[in-house]
Amino acid sequence: MKNDAKGALIVYSGPSGCGKGTVMTQVLAERDDTAMSVSVTTRAPRPGEVDGKDYFFIDRNAFERMVAAGELLEHAEYNGNLYGTPRAAVERQLLAGRNVVLEIDVQGAEQIMDSGADAVTIFLAPPSMQELARRLRKRGTEEESVMARRLAIARQEMSHAHRYQFFVINDVLEKAVRDIHAILDAERLRYSRARIDWEDE
Amino acid sequence: MKNDAKGALIVYSGPSGCGKGTVMTQVLAERDDTAMSVSVTTRAPRPGEVDGKDYFFIDRNAFERMVAAGELLEHAEYNGNLYGTPRAAVERQLLAGRNVVLEIDVQGAEQIMDSGADAVTIFLAPPSMQELARRLRKRGTEEESVMARRLAIARQEMSHAHRYQFFVINDVLEKAVRDIHAILDAERLRYSRARIDWEDE
Repeated sequence: MKNDAKGALIVYSGPSGCGKGTVMTQVLAERDDTAMSVSVTTRAPRPGEVDGKDYFFIDRNAFERMVAAGELLEHAEYNGNLYGTPRAAVERQLLAGRNVVLEIDVQGAEQIMDSGADAVTIFLAPPSMQELARRLRKRGTEEESVMARRLAIARQEMSHAHRYQFFVINDVLEKAVRDIHAILDAERLRYSRARIDWEDE
Repeated sequence: MKNDAKGALIVYSGPSGCGKGTVMTQVLAERDDTAMSVSVTTRAPRPGEVDGKDYFFIDRNAFERMVAAGELLEHAEYNGNLYGTPRAAVERQLLAGRNVVLEIDVQGAEQIMDSGADAVTIFLAPPSMQELARRLRKRGTEEESVMARRLAIARQEMSHAHRYQFFVINDVLEKAVRDIHAILDAERLRYSRARIDWEDE
């Protein structure tokens, strides 16, 4: 009996400053069955960015055609640029048995939850709001009004945590990394994604 | 931020001879947040069995009162004896943050699934039906008609695997043990069982 399981679509969110990128970078370095999704965007490539690796760079007409044809799992606009997750590329990976991670904000995550997609949803939380404030402060501007707005956005994002299946607290990095591994390892055993060869060898 | 998570009710099944007991015994020896459920039964205690540890030994009237009062999560009769899982004892453990494992057959498991209980359901499968036949043969009688009936029951149980959330193949013991640990570790991170202290320390 063998189970050549399909991959899982992993929706991964958390407020800015909670360590999302650091945690997932380490998880991906430690396993070869999981990769980040590559988004489509109308933003111009920055120096060094590679088409098809960092993003799929497309124009606004092409983007809007993809939206109309239902070819994006979710999409959003930031600073006048459109970003989206291409359904076909994700499904190819899942069928090949690889997990695909979408690191997206709560709005994008909720588009996917509401679409009824079979997604594994993980919310990463900071050890405390004080610690989050300290991390955001370290990042850049010290201007209190900007800080206050960022913290308000973080609190607003935290208020959506209950919509996610899993809640991981990033207190100690190694523990958070282990937690994400456990979730990915367990999801590989889900009957709904199993492709079982029932024949005896 | 702290998560003092509630425990999970683990429903654990698999055909006779698949190694259920061996796998779970090792898992329980390696973690202190999980214990087997103690059943109530009308069967007489065997020498050495301790009331409240091996079983809660009760008489048929008491058992039937528990059924009528909805105090059993599931129950069944084998060889003229009644067996059941007491709801209150399980819920006490879950509230104390401990997982409770019910090792039960597919009929008992389906009673729990159909009750809408928040259970984590795991089906343990043998590496192959040939291997299962070999293991059953090692256990006792060589009589072919008995063997054929046991294998038919095993096949019948396998046909219920799709009702379980997780499908674990017990090919290599250490791998199956790791798989169960991953499921239990991941389930500890479920938002639905989280008890989060949102206050900053």
